[in-house]
Amino acid sequence: MNFIDKLSAAWTRNDSLLCVGLDPDLARFPAHLKDQPDAIVRFCKAIIDATADLACAFKPQIAYFAALGAEDQLEEICSYLRDTYPHIPLILDAKRGDIGATAHQYAREAFDRYGADAVTVNPYMGFDSVEPYMAWKDRGVIVLCRTSNAGGSDLQFLDVGGLPLYQHVAKLVAGKWNRNGQCALVVGATFPEELAQVRKIIGDMPLLVPGVGAQGGDVEATVRAGRTAGGTGMMINSSRAILYAVPQEGEDFAAAARRVARETRDEINRYRG
Amino acid sequence: MNFIDKLSAAWTRNDSLLCVGLDPDLARFPAHLKDQPDAIVRFCKAIIDATADLACAFKPQIAYFAALGAEDQLEEICSYLRDTYPHIPLILDAKRGDIGATAHQYAREAFDRYGADAVTVNPYMGFDSVEPYMAWKDRGVIVLCRTSNAGGSDLQFLDVGGLPLYQHVAKLVAGKWNRNGQCALVVGATFPEELAQVRKIIGDMPLLVPGVGAQGGDVEATVRAGRTAGGTGMMINSSRAILYAVPQEGEDFAAAARRVARETRDEINRYRG
Repeated sequence: MNFIDKLSAAWTRNDSLLCVGLDPDLARFPAHLKDQPDAIVRFCKAIIDATADLACAFKPQIAYFAALGAEDQLEEICSYLRDTYPHIPLILDAKRGDIGATAHQYAREAFDRYGADAVTVNPYMGFDSVEPYMAWKDRGVIVLCRTSNAGGSDLQFLDVGGLPLYQHVAKLVAGKWNRNGQCALVVGATFPEELAQVRKIIGDMPLLVPGVGAQGGDVEATVRAGRTAGGTGMMINSSRAILYAVPQEGEDFAAAARRVARETRDEINRYRG
Repeated sequence: MNFIDKLSAAWTRNDSLLCVGLDPDLARFPAHLKDQPDAIVRFCKAIIDATADLACAFKPQIAYFAALGAEDQLEEICSYLRDTYPHIPLILDAKRGDIGATAHQYAREAFDRYGADAVTVNPYMGFDSVEPYMAWKDRGVIVLCRTSNAGGSDLQFLDVGGLPLYQHVAKLVAGKWNRNGQCALVVGATFPEELAQVRKIIGDMPLLVPGVGAQGGDVEATVRAGRTAGGTGMMINSSRAILYAVPQEGEDFAAAARRVARETRDEINRYRG
């Protein structure tokens, strides 16, 4: 099953637009895990098991693994995800951007090594830096469009022929780059009106939307702005708010993560349509 | 010594603006190396030893290591470079681009794990995606500006207030982002007139210039367009033309690499002054 179909099935199966981001930060791990050699695997597996029936996707952020030299643990987590929850898409958040031959190596990394269903990529180097990923026809290519950080406007908001650059990117991807129907876009939750503009441009193309949860985006405004007519079309990511949820009486970290994931999924669902 | 000073010293010491790119492709390795478990380390060390007196920098491309799960071999190569040739800057070509907390993880990867003197980064997410690297005050941050691939124009050539986007990026980096004097820019060799435009904008800031060698850029036009008044200011990268030079009678792959590296350095030097 290709990425888009798998994502659609997960939206329905788990009644969820919630993407759970896996950004393992040892400093924030529970004390009993911190000193374990495979702490990252244990932590991420516990989060995955606790939220797999609430999520439409999991999204490991490779930077957190790369900083620690923990690629082997990322491989193990991806393998566990694919084997145990084959119906939940695995998105590798890598934001790669490089030219043809090198992009092909990054595609091998994402799709062959880690077995990701989709990978995030950066559009700055143009179509031939994105096209190599499309050789894996059943995988998704999620292109950065409008990001939720303060500096996102430095380039993305520049005026290009009357449109901000990010809308130009949305048009490029929807109009030319999405030849095989494999593409999605990253649009942050910080500016719902911009999310609505992008939705108008791209039709039903899926959106990966970071910025909800710890980053403070407004869930109602985000969902109303980004949803498709069918009330789906979004992977609304939350990482830290779920991973590092403060346990209540009687909860461990995984139960706390499940509680916050369920609340977030349910809050999203209130505004779907 | 910080990156910029180290680079300046290497320009002088080796009388060279040549950056040797390390893009290890097993399929193109000499037959006797292909089946060795540490083939990449052996190959890269041989190239490094054969060219260290001819290069102003070495630039491993991390994608080639990541595709093979060979981060440990990249660590070993970087460690060897730092220990054996501490006067030659080590540039990690990673083209990372992500927001603050995640960018900090990528900076740890480049600077702490691999000990790179500089790393390439993508400007699409703006200043706060670049700033975290600057916390390492002695390291270099090399920002993508104008790339030499065909699709480079898709975004970089868009008209922003009468200037192509890549010139806007050059202005942003030279005018605002380069607070600590740590920045350099990537500008491809394919369009020498554009290289000249960028040089006008950025003063003496160093340029990393891919596209010479296997990618076919014109050396004379590239050097004349990109050099500073002092005849330096450039790291002109060649990867495949050196790594996979065809041996002549009596040469092994390393000797062939040395011959091509010397020819390239010398050709560059003819147009520096």
